[in-house]
Amino acid sequence: MTDVESKAVNVKKASEVLYNTPTAKKNALLRAIAAQLKRETDRILKVNLLDLAAARKSGLSDVLVDRLTLTEKRIAQMTTGVEDVFKLPDPVGEILERKKRPNGLLIEKVRVPIGAVGIIYESRPNVTIDAAVLCLKAGNAVLLRGGSEAIRTNSKLVEIIKKALKNVGLTSGCVEFLDTPDRKAVAEMLAQDRYLDVIIPRGSHKLIEYIRKTSSVPVIAHGEGNCHVYVDSTADLHAAADIVYNAKVQRPSVCNAAEKLLVHEKIAKAFLPKISDRLKLASVELRADKKTLSIIKNARQATEEDWYREYLDLIIGIKVVKGIDEAIEHINHYGSHHSDSIVTGTKKNGERFLREVDSAAVYVNASTRFTDGFEFGLGAEIGISTQKLHARGPMGLAELTTIKYVVHGSGQIRK
Amino acid sequence: MTDVESKAVNVKKASEVLYNTPTAKKNALLRAIAAQLKRETDRILKVNLLDLAAARKSGLSDVLVDRLTLTEKRIAQMTTGVEDVFKLPDPVGEILERKKRPNGLLIEKVRVPIGAVGIIYESRPNVTIDAAVLCLKAGNAVLLRGGSEAIRTNSKLVEIIKKALKNVGLTSGCVEFLDTPDRKAVAEMLAQDRYLDVIIPRGSHKLIEYIRKTSSVPVIAHGEGNCHVYVDSTADLHAAADIVYNAKVQRPSVCNAAEKLLVHEKIAKAFLPKISDRLKLASVELRADKKTLSIIKNARQATEEDWYREYLDLIIGIKVVKGIDEAIEHINHYGSHHSDSIVTGTKKNGERFLREVDSAAVYVNASTRFTDGFEFGLGAEIGISTQKLHARGPMGLAELTTIKYVVHGSGQIRK
Repeated sequence: MTDVESKAVNVKKASEVLYNTPTAKKNALLRAIAAQLKRETDRILKVNLLDLAAARKSGLSDVLVDRLTLTEKRIAQMTTGVEDVFKLPDPVGEILERKKRPNGLLIEKVRVPIGAVGIIYESRPNVTIDAAVLCLKAGNAVLLRGGSEAIRTNSKLVEIIKKALKNVGLTSGCVEFLDTPDRKAVAEMLAQDRYLDVIIPRGSHKLIEYIRKTSSVPVIAHGEGNCHVYVDSTADLHAAADIVYNAKVQRPSVCNAAEKLLVHEKIAKAFLPKISDRLKLASVELRADKKTLSIIKNARQATEEDWYREYLDLIIGIKVVKGIDEAIEHINHYGSHHSDSIVTGTKKNGERFLREVDSAAVYVNASTRFTDGFEFGLGAEIGISTQKLHARGPMGLAELTTIKYVVHGSGQIRK
Repeated sequence: MTDVESKAVNVKKASEVLYNTPTAKKNALLRAIAAQLKRETDRILKVNLLDLAAARKSGLSDVLVDRLTLTEKRIAQMTTGVEDVFKLPDPVGEILERKKRPNGLLIEKVRVPIGAVGIIYESRPNVTIDAAVLCLKAGNAVLLRGGSEAIRTNSKLVEIIKKALKNVGLTSGCVEFLDTPDRKAVAEMLAQDRYLDVIIPRGSHKLIEYIRKTSSVPVIAHGEGNCHVYVDSTADLHAAADIVYNAKVQRPSVCNAAEKLLVHEKIAKAFLPKISDRLKLASVELRADKKTLSIIKNARQATEEDWYREYLDLIIGIKVVKGIDEAIEHINHYGSHHSDSIVTGTKKNGERFLREVDSAAVYVNASTRFTDGFEFGLGAEIGISTQKLHARGPMGLAELTTIKYVVHGSGQIRK
């Protein structure tokens, strides 16, 4: 048995224990993890320095080095995150439906843990704690595979979780970590369909596509956000400018940031100069279609490929459209079905957009930046699903569970 | 572009139309399909005869020939099935949650169609109509791949659906059918992740395993039912005998039939002779462990492999267990997580069984045969999912939908 397989087996066995672990014990575990993180902050920082030194030596970009860096403040944030999940209600055991059948059977649809969850993620070490804690609270055991740059830091964080597991008397297999940089380990993990119930990948488009194509374990993909704001002819142009600016500039590196602006041709001349100047002041690069270029000069021409792209950067594509039909068609065709918004003063157009755009989150008169577990009132999230099955949009504790039907009888047989 | 790919593209395009097709039009389509089935009953039967002749010539077993056979009565049942789905409420547009956030955003979680569904099934031609109609009512377009023995009958049934689509003015691509017996077509279908949102396989364990391992499209597997009845020491033995007999004998060929009987050692001597005689009278073959064989003589010894098997036949495995702990452990280890039942007079044991057995449906004091969309009050079903993601247990109209978040704002931007 390989290391990957034996860890998958551990996780599977531990998931059978967690399946029936009461809320109080899971909460005690979360408390213990938070305490251990505080207690060992200095040691975590020391280990993190080793990863940082190796990263700089290997020529990792400044952005990636920053993502890898832990500080006292960042560890404190991780601890607060654990305490936030502690406070969330346990989804397990929730009765979603209950009905009495004519034959007297009482049928309940009840939330239960999924079981054994695999998570594959890239550099940020905080995901190790965030993801593990969400899985544990939902009663799932978890096999983690982090980025190779963060391998020492992640190992240390998992060691901390294992200490906490021991402190509360839970089996160490509840959280396992693949501590090899070998890429073959990922392929092996994707083949553990006997032991793992789901794989949740977080990372680059390329990584996620590889996993989707390769895995025999079901995958819940956290894909790209090529998000749009469409400014309709009846939009309040001040509100529209605020929404576009916020959606693009407030945090350009995240998946719910806007990557494209579509503008109704009737208001293009009034709106485009204003918004493009404002975006330029924030150092946003503008890539525009021909109609837009006939109105503003501070942009370069967009290519066909631009309309498909998620930049995750201070870049925006701008296109003038004939109206809501073209806007909806463009978004459904080129978009990634993540988050898209219309700014309009026409109620009917708002309703059409909300109905016809096939995305995880559709907005009228608001920034796309709100697609997020906290903003949606779901609590902490493990990511934002861009696929349609099981979980779509922010994926919180409830989405880390499945259901079972619980049937209470008094001797019923089928006729 | 291959035939499979171009049909997948058709289905994808049609799914965009169906996404916004109102209930009235979808219902008109279902009515038109039912009418066309009635009108063309004789022609369907004629085509079915061709499949039957070929099947007999190729030496297909009597059971499979029977599954392939259509009669006036079976077509009338298909028609009634379409009318039943007509009567079910449209799941699309249902608002599952609605909340107002402190910043004034109104967030709704709304049911929407999944999109493009692929269904791979074996011989029964009624699945062509049943599955297509369920998908259409839920707003999905569908690519069908049936068994090669039924290819002429299935083509004729799809022709009928296409006439109905034309009659109500919907695009023909809403339902496409792979009319080649070439097995390569299945492999090609499993690779259409650009166009298909989900594949639902129905058929043998072998077929489903192949699809699960191969498909780059997400799969909702309708797997085996190795279902158990556990008779506890405090069970009412008359009720227990009725439940075991019903679960095994009433319809042994279906996935919710019991395949295993576990008996508490304290009541084994009182219960086993009685139930084994009754099962024997119904021609059930008994495969038993050693303890059981020391009590009853009309059984042969079970092998280790028997405990894993789904017989779908008049065969049952019988094992004496020390108590509820061993019963739960056995079921979670050897079972297929489909439907399992405890017969007990002890409330605490019933509750433990319902909580700790990790199956799609868990029962206390009732036959496992109730795991079914109609019996659960969900209406017609496309199958019974034995996996944990998206749908678990009977999969009806609601499980053929996904959700989107619809967000109503008034200019909100993220701080």
